[in-house]
Amino acid sequence: MPEVIILGTLALDTIETPFGKQNDILGGSAAFAAYAASFFAKPGIISIVGKDFPAPHKRALEQRGIDLSGVKVEGKTFRWEGFYEFDMNEAKTLKTELNSLAEFVPEIPEPFRDAGYIFLANTDPEIQLGVLEKMKAPGTVILDTMNFWIQHKREALLKVMKKASIVLLNDGEARQMFATPNLVKAAKEVLALGPYAAIIKKGEHGALLFTKDSHFNAPGYPLEEIKDPTGCGDTFGGALIGWLAKAKSRSQETIRKAMIYASVLASFNAEDFSLERLKKLTHKDIESRYQEFVRMRNF
Amino acid sequence: MPEVIILGTLALDTIETPFGKQNDILGGSAAFAAYAASFFAKPGIISIVGKDFPAPHKRALEQRGIDLSGVKVEGKTFRWEGFYEFDMNEAKTLKTELNSLAEFVPEIPEPFRDAGYIFLANTDPEIQLGVLEKMKAPGTVILDTMNFWIQHKREALLKVMKKASIVLLNDGEARQMFATPNLVKAAKEVLALGPYAAIIKKGEHGALLFTKDSHFNAPGYPLEEIKDPTGCGDTFGGALIGWLAKAKSRSQETIRKAMIYASVLASFNAEDFSLERLKKLTHKDIESRYQEFVRMRNF
Repeated sequence: MPEVIILGTLALDTIETPFGKQNDILGGSAAFAAYAASFFAKPGIISIVGKDFPAPHKRALEQRGIDLSGVKVEGKTFRWEGFYEFDMNEAKTLKTELNSLAEFVPEIPEPFRDAGYIFLANTDPEIQLGVLEKMKAPGTVILDTMNFWIQHKREALLKVMKKASIVLLNDGEARQMFATPNLVKAAKEVLALGPYAAIIKKGEHGALLFTKDSHFNAPGYPLEEIKDPTGCGDTFGGALIGWLAKAKSRSQETIRKAMIYASVLASFNAEDFSLERLKKLTHKDIESRYQEFVRMRNF
Repeated sequence: MPEVIILGTLALDTIETPFGKQNDILGGSAAFAAYAASFFAKPGIISIVGKDFPAPHKRALEQRGIDLSGVKVEGKTFRWEGFYEFDMNEAKTLKTELNSLAEFVPEIPEPFRDAGYIFLANTDPEIQLGVLEKMKAPGTVILDTMNFWIQHKREALLKVMKKASIVLLNDGEARQMFATPNLVKAAKEVLALGPYAAIIKKGEHGALLFTKDSHFNAPGYPLEEIKDPTGCGDTFGGALIGWLAKAKSRSQETIRKAMIYASVLASFNAEDFSLERLKKLTHKDIESRYQEFVRMRNF
């Protein structure tokens, strides 16, 4: 029985960065998130793929113990094609083919409904809300989204936000969502809706945590080699929910540590395309970089 | 006798931000840097102003015990006019009148030459080099610069860099100077020239310290009210040299603490125009925000 449920996309990505081009590689928010979560807890995915979804991609997820019984198979797999310029900070989309994702109605396997840790990775907020309402004991719910939903489905997004425990937004999304350049104000708006934490992701600059009584600044890891930042935000969210599920606590200390582990996983993810770096990752690698985070912030 | 020598500009700034417009206010790299340094050590300024430089501006500096005997008075004061848009991250220049700064040949008062702590704030690298060569015992030299000098006087800038102890660059300047998007690589290029530390300033995202054996990530302070970020980089550099002069050590621990104090002063500076916030600042305010930095990065 999965401990962590991840709702999100499974995709075939075609990506060009200054360091190469790769076609039809495994991508999608649920792929990165579940893979990252699997280092700390047992994840199950709610998603959809097409009949063309390659068997090796499926095996890559199953080999980590990820439960795919909530993944429907219909039509063609969702595809995304994009590129990064030299600064690597922002993906430029060349093409999006929704395919089977366009008509996605999630089906939640019975054993999934008891899980207490849910990551609503980036997808349509109406679908997020639908899944959340079917969960029996959603103790910790992390919500991610993107600019498209803020612009086109803000009301639905507000509804999910009210039910979330932790809301993830990147800095641009936070400013857009609450029409303010001020990240502190945006975070307070999130908290006023109900969540006990707002996390503002700032890419290479790290992430900020805001709770009612305190704020925390998780540093970015100064990577020397970045091959492909795709999925770093999803990796962050997945590792976060996985670590919280493992820790079984929502104390300030726990969530700060979880953010550092999430930053560790996200920093590794950027070092290669798709899940290639995470596939080689060991717990020793994770601990070693965690300690580097400790050293680079002592003063 | 000043303990810290600051070479830089004194200016009359006209600045518009979304929070107001102010005319002919006290500005310039040396003004912010010396004022910030004065909280920790006794600074002396090497600079030039015009006969039109307002007496209250001069008094504001003298009241902090800043030695102005190295400030020449000739012609008209350097003026800068600029504005910030809503994101407040980048100053847009409307007008620069160099005036007496165009023909500036520094004269260094005899008592200044023995100081061991020098901050070469942003100015022509040839002038920075000339001043540095006249100092008798420049133990700790912090160097700041800007994109204009990187583009137009790169060779002279490289010469000063080789003689500096600590080089400050913002992220854009670091990338431009060494033609790489990678801040880690840029920092290593700085260290290869001779300095024992490279500090990459990232504005609201904090600052990174790189030395031969370690890196450190100083967080930005999440300000809720920003009125005018002008001079934050200079404030950072001035507080840094002041704190190092007070600590009389260049240990890793000392420089990390100095960076946090520098971040504290810079964060206060953004809260009002010109030196207005720093004028009201107490040591208690500084300690209190320092402790907030400690709390917001514990995990």
